[in-house]
Amino acid sequence: MNAKPVLDLFGGELRAINLGLESFAADLVREGAAAVQVDWRPPAGGDRKAIAALDAIAAGTTVDVKKANAEAVRRILAAEPTVIGIGIAKDVVPGMAKDLVLHAGPPVTWEKMCGPLRGAVIGGLIFEGLAKTPEEAEALAASGRIRFDPCHHHDAVGPMAGVMTASMPVWIVENKAFGNKAYCTLNEGLGKVLRYGAYSAEVIDRLAWMRDELAPILVAALERFGPIDMKSILAQILQMGDEGHNRNRAGTSLIIRELAPHIVMLDFPKEKLSKALAFLNANDHFFLNMSMPSAKCSVDAAAGIEGSSIITTMARNGTEFGIKLSGLPGRWFTGPAGVVDGLYLPGFGPEDAARDIGDSVITETSGIGGFAMAAAPAIVKFVGGSPKDAIDVTMRMYEITDAESQSYRIPVLDFRGTPTGINVIKVVETGILPAINTGIAHKNPGVGMVGAGLVKPPENAFRDALVAFAEKYAI
Amino acid sequence: MNAKPVLDLFGGELRAINLGLESFAADLVREGAAAVQVDWRPPAGGDRKAIAALDAIAAGTTVDVKKANAEAVRRILAAEPTVIGIGIAKDVVPGMAKDLVLHAGPPVTWEKMCGPLRGAVIGGLIFEGLAKTPEEAEALAASGRIRFDPCHHHDAVGPMAGVMTASMPVWIVENKAFGNKAYCTLNEGLGKVLRYGAYSAEVIDRLAWMRDELAPILVAALERFGPIDMKSILAQILQMGDEGHNRNRAGTSLIIRELAPHIVMLDFPKEKLSKALAFLNANDHFFLNMSMPSAKCSVDAAAGIEGSSIITTMARNGTEFGIKLSGLPGRWFTGPAGVVDGLYLPGFGPEDAARDIGDSVITETSGIGGFAMAAAPAIVKFVGGSPKDAIDVTMRMYEITDAESQSYRIPVLDFRGTPTGINVIKVVETGILPAINTGIAHKNPGVGMVGAGLVKPPENAFRDALVAFAEKYAI
Repeated sequence: MNAKPVLDLFGGELRAINLGLESFAADLVREGAAAVQVDWRPPAGGDRKAIAALDAIAAGTTVDVKKANAEAVRRILAAEPTVIGIGIAKDVVPGMAKDLVLHAGPPVTWEKMCGPLRGAVIGGLIFEGLAKTPEEAEALAASGRIRFDPCHHHDAVGPMAGVMTASMPVWIVENKAFGNKAYCTLNEGLGKVLRYGAYSAEVIDRLAWMRDELAPILVAALERFGPIDMKSILAQILQMGDEGHNRNRAGTSLIIRELAPHIVMLDFPKEKLSKALAFLNANDHFFLNMSMPSAKCSVDAAAGIEGSSIITTMARNGTEFGIKLSGLPGRWFTGPAGVVDGLYLPGFGPEDAARDIGDSVITETSGIGGFAMAAAPAIVKFVGGSPKDAIDVTMRMYEITDAESQSYRIPVLDFRGTPTGINVIKVVETGILPAINTGIAHKNPGVGMVGAGLVKPPENAFRDALVAFAEKYAI
Repeated sequence: MNAKPVLDLFGGELRAINLGLESFAADLVREGAAAVQVDWRPPAGGDRKAIAALDAIAAGTTVDVKKANAEAVRRILAAEPTVIGIGIAKDVVPGMAKDLVLHAGPPVTWEKMCGPLRGAVIGGLIFEGLAKTPEEAEALAASGRIRFDPCHHHDAVGPMAGVMTASMPVWIVENKAFGNKAYCTLNEGLGKVLRYGAYSAEVIDRLAWMRDELAPILVAALERFGPIDMKSILAQILQMGDEGHNRNRAGTSLIIRELAPHIVMLDFPKEKLSKALAFLNANDHFFLNMSMPSAKCSVDAAAGIEGSSIITTMARNGTEFGIKLSGLPGRWFTGPAGVVDGLYLPGFGPEDAARDIGDSVITETSGIGGFAMAAAPAIVKFVGGSPKDAIDVTMRMYEITDAESQSYRIPVLDFRGTPTGINVIKVVETGILPAINTGIAHKNPGVGMVGAGLVKPPENAFRDALVAFAEKYAI
């Protein structure tokens, strides 16, 4: 209301503003002076190569980076992820074969695989009938006769270990705006499950039941129901306390209520229909394996844009965390997978935890998941922290993204769109790393889930990507 | 950190604190001075009789009011509302009879009934086969041969018009902690429905289908499923963006997903099962008629406690708003029903609106609904306002309630329990009226829903109740 003359700045109480070392501000406060701590760090954390890359990009590029990023972000926002069916992996996933095991994250050899990924590979080989015992499976995996490849190299994603084998049923999600597709297995539930590295008989039996009974029922239900507009469902679950990564109770509920009137009509024995519905009802994460390929096909449409520094892939295999940039297609930039800070199931602690693993960070890459935590305050009961932390996480993500979703909105932030389109330049400049919430697998094969929490990706992956980006595009 | 000497209070910038008239503070701000507006009003809005009643109660009472209120609140918090089945009203609702029409709110004669309540009565009489045309039904209603009674006089509640007739199916909810029961019809959906005063053929046909097909299916499903723990479900929906009054999408979803595995097993033609499931899926308010009797049996256990000033009933019939106090059982205190401030459906506006109507305010009486709006920020898309308003509403309600729920918690308020146990003494003292969000019916019979919004109850009902309370209990 009042135009404040500049001199007024000195008319009030004097305050010190402290940049950098917090201890100095703490001293001032202890002495009774008012001090404001600003959490300042030098750009790129003072890393010389990264600063040089930032400077080089700022000095001029061969392609208009701003324009390229605007196009990448436009495509992500324009995505129309739609479930169009369920198929068997070898029939629908590009390049899928009997001797191929897909896994989460960037490429990794059997020798370097972490415990839960090894466990899931063992389970996958047993499930495929390629091995009869865990020992046989291990020997086969190490023999060189089995090929390993990231899900991401086959338009696919997988939560945690992310193991997909030839005869597993998979969701087929099409991005109707661009025609590209993405694939993901069906979610098995929590606890002793393949994706957490368990491979006991109950795990294999459940996978067989999912292939032989659950998937055919869902296929038939989808034939009656038609395509599922995932953009609409994802928009709704953000109004219902889910964020589509570690909280999926609303999403699973919406899928059940939409499909139930069709499932009841199917020509299957009603005991089988009831068992399928009871399985969905008992598994709040069933929706996760639908939100993930929705996110995957949304960001994939933004890959390969000359000059774009938008991150189109983030993924972890339990050994390494890797990212890809739109403008550097086909190249992974990796760092060591992080240690998850979270809550543990009774009887487990940090000493039991595997490192960060899974393709589920595709949700954050597309602007939901951890980036939408403010929409899901109750998630802190699962991953730790306070509801205020959840809001703070989302607010920080606006600083490293180029856009806000027009579809995915956060009620408590006055329906502000979720932060979307992670720009690696902003990540390196600010030192703010993408926020990821995740499950925690036991470090040993064969055990399963032990907790859930938040994890920081390795900063060097982002710096390395930026340096490579500058090498290619700076004048 | 620093102990601030009192003199420091005058060391800083001087600010005016303004009590009362806002215009004075506005003047100060316009002149450039810092001013803080405190929304102060004299106790009881300056009403002499109410102030005298407050003084008399403060001077001494024949019963320990604090202790009585603690017991009332203890009972509300200890309630264990549980759906135990569905029955036909005349078979299960105390005193229900063919010539009796139950309605929302305090008692009202046919002559004084508002348009939507008249419309619902007309529909109810046609549904019962007591009249063939609206004209016949009106004549019958006015003839004196039909008795009218509040739902609340029969352990029942009804949303909007709240009309219940003898052959309607009703939810039976038992408060397992105290053994008392409450009843409510099944929800018909939105739009042209009886509870909003519509009575066309489609409305009557739907009611007949609900009696003849939907209810028997739900009865059979509940026989398989067993009792529904509504306390657990209500606790969960507050983590999923519902508040159990005007937002019930999560609640309806949870009921569907729990019942679907059982519905599919029933010996009914599958087309009928599918139609029932499709009806539930198409009606997000299906859960409202389950949350209302849950709230009703929760607060009913706190009624009739000698010396308690806790409000155990709030209800409106479209003509009057009425409340009951625990310590003055059987007595209604009423005032004119309010005008709802809200959002209208396309083609309708405030000139079409009936006044505030319905027993659904039982949800607020029990500590959810409007009192839990902070848990349901997306509700503002339905009732108007901003998400911050929703949080403010809940925060204000802590000032007029005696307790916080241990079961119903609001994530965004760091899982604080919902404000529970409205104390009429606090309402009158502070002038803060209970926050109610509600649907809006068309003022004419036969039309239906036109919008939703927030409404203020009449202050005099609370003052009159307080005066009567002082007359009975002040020394």
